[in-house]
Amino acid sequence: MIGPVVTHYLFPEELLIPAENVAHVMPEHSVMHAALVLSSLGYNRIPVIDDDGKFAGTIGLSTIMGDLLDWDEISGEKMKTLKVEDVMDRKNNVLVQGYDDAQLLREMVHFNFLPVVDEKNVFLGIVTRKEILKRINFLAHELEKEYRIEKK
Amino acid sequence: MIGPVVTHYLFPEELLIPAENVAHVMPEHSVMHAALVLSSLGYNRIPVIDDDGKFAGTIGLSTIMGDLLDWDEISGEKMKTLKVEDVMDRKNNVLVQGYDDAQLLREMVHFNFLPVVDEKNVFLGIVTRKEILKRINFLAHELEKEYRIEKK
Repeated sequence: MIGPVVTHYLFPEELLIPAENVAHVMPEHSVMHAALVLSSLGYNRIPVIDDDGKFAGTIGLSTIMGDLLDWDEISGEKMKTLKVEDVMDRKNNVLVQGYDDAQLLREMVHFNFLPVVDEKNVFLGIVTRKEILKRINFLAHELEKEYRIEKK
Repeated sequence: MIGPVVTHYLFPEELLIPAENVAHVMPEHSVMHAALVLSSLGYNRIPVIDDDGKFAGTIGLSTIMGDLLDWDEISGEKMKTLKVEDVMDRKNNVLVQGYDDAQLLREMVHFNFLPVVDEKNVFLGIVTRKEILKRINFLAHELEKEYRIEKK
């Protein structure tokens, strides 16, 4: 269990970046489109969201590069005809709305971002290591200024 | 300044992953080789180290994908003839041995890993968000069990 003082610093509010502010692609987009979006934004991986706003998976540069290297011939033509849904990663750790902070912190050891969905799998947004690390910086600098801390 | 209790939890020892345990490529390797190394290890970016063990830069899937997309024709041939040194990123934030913990925490907001070098630019290893986040998990769960904390 995470105590109240640490919670106060790390999770003063929900760290969610809401869906409308998160770059994504759709299952029917081409792999080329996804590569251009990832490359132009400088992201390694983004969520795939379907027409109903549901979370369908993620696609990353590693997904696309892995496929390129597997083909007999590395080809831009193939990137234009293949769709995101043909190559996207469907097994993703997600946080379901109402998740607890301890779960979030534990998962952040392994992932740069985690999608957050509601109980119907509607995509609500993401939480990122970046936002957590901003809060940690704040805690590291402020905790011992603001609190007296003694070994029990 | 980071206080002694937070330091005790986050930096009980140096978090460096030593050079001999870090996957890397060399400037004269082909871009294809770098893509295969990145893809097979599931990494997005790795350091480039020269013959003398000095840090030369980094190469990432985003570097390679950006170049592929810029070419008239996406081509495996070109990936075999181009060298890492032709495309690698030479501007990287690095930590110089003796860096302080506050600098490390601040930089980790922006980067998944940071190269650590000595004053002669010899590559010593990397520090990663992953190792920091493991320590943060420990702090979040233990601090308020082990210490009595009161507002000043």
